[in-house]
Amino acid sequence: MKTATEELVEICKAAKAASRRMALLSTDVKNKALRNIAGDLAAKKDEVLSANQLDYKEGESSGMSAAMLDRLMLNPGRLEGIAADVLAVAALPDPVGEVFDMRTLPNGLLLGKKRVPLGVIGAIYESRPNVTIDISALCLKSGNAIVLRGGKEAIHSNTALARVVQEATKRAGMPEAAVQLIENTDRTLVNELLRMREYIDLVIPRGGAGLIKMVVENACMPVVSGGIGVCHMYVDKSADIDQSVAIAYNAKVQRPTVCNALDCVIIHKDIAERCLPKIAAEWSKAGVEIHCDERSLAILKKNPSLKLKPAVAEDWGKEFLALIAAVKVVDSLDEALEHIDRYGSGHSEAIVTEEYGAAMRFLNEVDAACVYVNASTRFTDGGQFGLGAEVGISTQKLHARGPMGLRELTTYKWLIFGNGQVRP
Amino acid sequence: MKTATEELVEICKAAKAASRRMALLSTDVKNKALRNIAGDLAAKKDEVLSANQLDYKEGESSGMSAAMLDRLMLNPGRLEGIAADVLAVAALPDPVGEVFDMRTLPNGLLLGKKRVPLGVIGAIYESRPNVTIDISALCLKSGNAIVLRGGKEAIHSNTALARVVQEATKRAGMPEAAVQLIENTDRTLVNELLRMREYIDLVIPRGGAGLIKMVVENACMPVVSGGIGVCHMYVDKSADIDQSVAIAYNAKVQRPTVCNALDCVIIHKDIAERCLPKIAAEWSKAGVEIHCDERSLAILKKNPSLKLKPAVAEDWGKEFLALIAAVKVVDSLDEALEHIDRYGSGHSEAIVTEEYGAAMRFLNEVDAACVYVNASTRFTDGGQFGLGAEVGISTQKLHARGPMGLRELTTYKWLIFGNGQVRP
Repeated sequence: MKTATEELVEICKAAKAASRRMALLSTDVKNKALRNIAGDLAAKKDEVLSANQLDYKEGESSGMSAAMLDRLMLNPGRLEGIAADVLAVAALPDPVGEVFDMRTLPNGLLLGKKRVPLGVIGAIYESRPNVTIDISALCLKSGNAIVLRGGKEAIHSNTALARVVQEATKRAGMPEAAVQLIENTDRTLVNELLRMREYIDLVIPRGGAGLIKMVVENACMPVVSGGIGVCHMYVDKSADIDQSVAIAYNAKVQRPTVCNALDCVIIHKDIAERCLPKIAAEWSKAGVEIHCDERSLAILKKNPSLKLKPAVAEDWGKEFLALIAAVKVVDSLDEALEHIDRYGSGHSEAIVTEEYGAAMRFLNEVDAACVYVNASTRFTDGGQFGLGAEVGISTQKLHARGPMGLRELTTYKWLIFGNGQVRP
Repeated sequence: MKTATEELVEICKAAKAASRRMALLSTDVKNKALRNIAGDLAAKKDEVLSANQLDYKEGESSGMSAAMLDRLMLNPGRLEGIAADVLAVAALPDPVGEVFDMRTLPNGLLLGKKRVPLGVIGAIYESRPNVTIDISALCLKSGNAIVLRGGKEAIHSNTALARVVQEATKRAGMPEAAVQLIENTDRTLVNELLRMREYIDLVIPRGGAGLIKMVVENACMPVVSGGIGVCHMYVDKSADIDQSVAIAYNAKVQRPTVCNALDCVIIHKDIAERCLPKIAAEWSKAGVEIHCDERSLAILKKNPSLKLKPAVAEDWGKEFLALIAAVKVVDSLDEALEHIDRYGSGHSEAIVTEEYGAAMRFLNEVDAACVYVNASTRFTDGGQFGLGAEVGISTQKLHARGPMGLRELTTYKWLIFGNGQVRP
């Protein structure tokens, strides 16, 4: 009998072999596979939902939190949404095959770059079973083979969904190993997977900070990490107050559980008295709890209807993922920049200002994937940025920064056309 | 007294702080720093050469090989060459500040990407002291701070060279910590350095396969690995024989110790009898030793003046870095592609052919950084490709593939200009 490690190596080897064929597939085949997946998700929804019920019941009986159970749960509406997303990916242009930077050198060599798939992508994720489909769709469209490793809590759902994908892709003419799920949920296998640099070209972790840290620290192959967003908004002394209130409300309240949601408002002392009470009053309509530094607490405590707490050290640099915001009054733009430099996670940072010089300094000096002037950080999203779909938000600097779309799942190779050139 | 680890953390923190200022430097300041370095290398050559003599003598007395001693050795001519390379980098365009992909979204947001430095680059290298200057020049020009960790064998040379760079850059107005050398040669510090993801944005290992493997397996931050080139040339049945001979000679002989030198000729059986003896005869003028598979041995052994050996299993997939080549006869292009797929290192692969279909299949199906038709693999080089200078050849797929120039030492950030937009 094979050991778990031997099985894992087989999966990875098969993925590598499949990736050679995937790289040569036509856009038509890839789109057909995606349409098959969307169709099969509808046709086989009973199988998928009953598998999901198994996970859900196990989750309930093991005392899983309501938030976790919600992440785990599939229903007909959610499945339809997932299928619609797959069709949206099918409708996007194929990034593979683009030839660029082509030029003829003085010695007559014609050379340039051709966009090609990365090869094999490993996805390591937690309890959301929709990731199985989302990430498969993006990887397939970009011509990559994929090895999926989902959380144990969702193993029945993931197995059912992976089967749907496998049948649908095979029917479209893709290799069998285009999409594989590691069904063995032994945790030590993740560490083994992270050493298989020979077979896996990129690992994408999707989940909480703990998972991402574990992957980044242990992977031998390249990782695109991200998704941790400690987002600040600096209200400059020259800010338009209505704009500040609207942006602060949108960025904090519209969807507080995601990485591009606002965590901390930094406000200039000259405008704090006028602006902060309005931001706080608006927030209070949605039940936002405000963790205040001393100066903001002095301003806001006049309004007894606000949920205020004195900020503690851990509030700075914290991704709340909830209706909680930290607030700090500063003396200057410089102080705001220093705070962001120290506590930001390099995700999305915004300034609200009417002063040209302040806007330009903020854009130039803040080191983050996305730097905003007078707009909500909630726009940091592949769909909103016009990339069509995204596999995640990168907060590292190599390869891709910010929303990663299909193109960011590709690489290039140099093509060199000669007629006998040798190097002098 | 500070521990070595504390000192290392201080170095890395200082680099991070310096990188903020580096990112905002004008091209003029960066070029001035580079011109200062070139000038100071001439003015202080006695100091540098006498430091190098210390390393050389220690190397000699510890029984270092002639090849290693040659790598270690500096002399006035080499120093002049290094200084000239620095001036060449000064003359290149500054990659930082380019704004691209700018567009206005339907909601009025103006967004796009701005090219910015990566931040802090860690360079881990072996005994060539010229790397201290080369990599510093490239990192400085691209606005990055750099932490250097050279080999113990070259510590006196590296310390002297780093001092030259530090004084020259400081005089140009760069922060003091723009370039730092870890002078403590304790090996365990490298492992500690590789965990400092918080401060170091990219690690570039420069050296042999052992060093690169160690860095890739232990680094927590992104690494651009490469430099291992197992390069094949496939002589198709339709190949021009003169061209094949000229390319095989150039690729193997012109500079056999570098990564883009040819390691293995794969030749179609229909042309092997006519072509292989000519390639081998040309090689024999330079003293190339040929490791033959059975079929090529049968063809070549008729010429008693050749240095032939039967190939052993390890010859396939070996980077010889010497005047040695492996030769194999195949039945088809498919067999050649399979061989390259199995044994190539993803660096540079070439086909010699007059058949359009074979050329296109080779270009499409070979998965390598650089794929050549009818040209020598020796062209895989930043200078030859028109990038001006290179920090190395990447054989991984993320971020950059093939020669990495100044642009590949940068990343981008998204700039978003709004006027109050919130996400619906």
